[in-house]
Amino acid sequence: MAQNLIFTNDVESAIQRLTASGDHNLTVWIADVNTARLLPAPPQHLITIPDGDENKTLATVTHVWDEMERMGASRHSLAINLGGGMVTDLGGWAAATFKRGVRFINVPTTLLGAVDAAVGGKTGINYNGLKNEIGAFAPASDVIISTRFFDTLPIEEMKSGFAEVIKHAMLSDRAEVMRLLDHDFSAPIHHDDLLERLKHSVSVKTDIVARDPEEKGERKALNLGHTVGHAMESLAMQRGKPVPHGYAVAWGLVTEATLSHMRLGFPSEDVHKLGNFVRDNYRDFPFTCDDYEDLLDLMRHDKKSRNGEITCTLLSAIGDYRIDQAVSADDVTAALDILRDHLGL
Amino acid sequence: MAQNLIFTNDVESAIQRLTASGDHNLTVWIADVNTARLLPAPPQHLITIPDGDENKTLATVTHVWDEMERMGASRHSLAINLGGGMVTDLGGWAAATFKRGVRFINVPTTLLGAVDAAVGGKTGINYNGLKNEIGAFAPASDVIISTRFFDTLPIEEMKSGFAEVIKHAMLSDRAEVMRLLDHDFSAPIHHDDLLERLKHSVSVKTDIVARDPEEKGERKALNLGHTVGHAMESLAMQRGKPVPHGYAVAWGLVTEATLSHMRLGFPSEDVHKLGNFVRDNYRDFPFTCDDYEDLLDLMRHDKKSRNGEITCTLLSAIGDYRIDQAVSADDVTAALDILRDHLGL
Repeated sequence: MAQNLIFTNDVESAIQRLTASGDHNLTVWIADVNTARLLPAPPQHLITIPDGDENKTLATVTHVWDEMERMGASRHSLAINLGGGMVTDLGGWAAATFKRGVRFINVPTTLLGAVDAAVGGKTGINYNGLKNEIGAFAPASDVIISTRFFDTLPIEEMKSGFAEVIKHAMLSDRAEVMRLLDHDFSAPIHHDDLLERLKHSVSVKTDIVARDPEEKGERKALNLGHTVGHAMESLAMQRGKPVPHGYAVAWGLVTEATLSHMRLGFPSEDVHKLGNFVRDNYRDFPFTCDDYEDLLDLMRHDKKSRNGEITCTLLSAIGDYRIDQAVSADDVTAALDILRDHLGL
Repeated sequence: MAQNLIFTNDVESAIQRLTASGDHNLTVWIADVNTARLLPAPPQHLITIPDGDENKTLATVTHVWDEMERMGASRHSLAINLGGGMVTDLGGWAAATFKRGVRFINVPTTLLGAVDAAVGGKTGINYNGLKNEIGAFAPASDVIISTRFFDTLPIEEMKSGFAEVIKHAMLSDRAEVMRLLDHDFSAPIHHDDLLERLKHSVSVKTDIVARDPEEKGERKALNLGHTVGHAMESLAMQRGKPVPHGYAVAWGLVTEATLSHMRLGFPSEDVHKLGNFVRDNYRDFPFTCDDYEDLLDLMRHDKKSRNGEITCTLLSAIGDYRIDQAVSADDVTAALDILRDHLGL
């Protein structure tokens, strides 16, 4: 799982250096209808796919395979995925399976993609309505991480990615968490500073992934906030009122920090600081106590749970995580009440 | 690419030991309509697929994925592929991609599968009429190699697999080649002895694959006989008169041994011994000198060639191989004439 990570806001030069050094015979760009417009000039070989998670399907992958064939791509070709998590997940899997695998580079264009989807080798598609049901662990050879596409990102997108940045900091470093909780989304992006935060954030993920690339154990640490968060995201989706992934993660982080306090003595001061930031930035929580049973049911069926037990990654302190922690439905219920208190609901 | 190889004719016990030790929650068998009948009793979870290379398609894979979902398979499940190369290629890829990869065991039922397809981690499907166009390098956790399914194999199937056995010996050990060239296909199978030959043969492949799992270099040695053989197989297929893969490999081995003699001084005595065995067992060569141009064209477009040059793996002696050897059309033409002399045509 050796991935070359390049942090730069001079994306063109980085791509030029990477494509000059290889001996690939053809470079294929894969972008969605929006990110294709980010290219300064249309490249010779561009495959445009529809955007959105609802198009992360086998039909879209076969379109990419067909286009790669039509363009004459071989096992010595190179693919460059330009886009958010949907593009890097799907484009990465298309490249990893074409002729049993061609080299690919990820150029994430969203904050969430930069700190999560584009790094760490998870690729794949949704299938039969199930998220990431088909795919592979297949690392990009290189990932170019920049903030230069973020100025035009909707603020909800920025907030959504930022929740994963906070998650990574909570797995590693209290000072970094405190720096992040000072962030002001209404201010213009300070690119150099944000790129430093991304370096820190991505290094937390890559350190963990290097020790457990295929999620046999320790990689589950990255699931912090996600047992609860995924349930919220799924329930909102089922009701036809989807919420951004990172919003659900932010709510999940507060809930699981509270569970961490209850079970492992995680400092209540830190729960409060996190809770205040989430109240200020991710307030529009769509559930009441009437939804707890549905949420608990979804947590019991999380793909990382076994035997219907709810398991989370919990913290005894920032940076000190424990995977596979079973929690009771009563504790989760209490923690959800406390989340709603934090949000002022 | 660590694959646990088990050589035994007590297949049931081997499977029992392997499935008892894992902590998978469900075992799914994948077999084709013929190999499903080899099971002593139908297992609880059996996915039956149509047989034949023409069914090694995305449609068949989606059937396997759908069935795995219907049966409740999870990332902790286990798949067992029972069949020839089509089943282990397709079933292996279906397992390697389901939820980003579940463990799978190969139980090859043909000689060709045992010494080639089931071992070494190549999985995949045909796509848009192109062989193995989509797939992955994904090793089976375990491969159970036995001769017990071979008594009912058609003799053409045995001969086809045997050509790959000879190829492996030619890459490694002259004494083994000479033992193999004494083989009599009309005699009943001597199981213990044949299992010893398989051990030797598979070890040649696994030693090479271990040094180069993704075919960046040395693994191309396994392509011996195949630059010429693939062209013959493809041309026969294009003309609607397919030949067994191993027959084409046998003809390719004689042709490339002759090229090896011309270019690298490979001993003519060994070309003759090989040529005689191929004359005695693989005589029905369907081409004349009128077909040479078509064959050369196909060799120029082989997926391992570059820039339209014909490249082969050649030998300076048995066991001493050189990959990426460019050969001229004139030399290939001369070698094809000599092949036809050997065959008495």
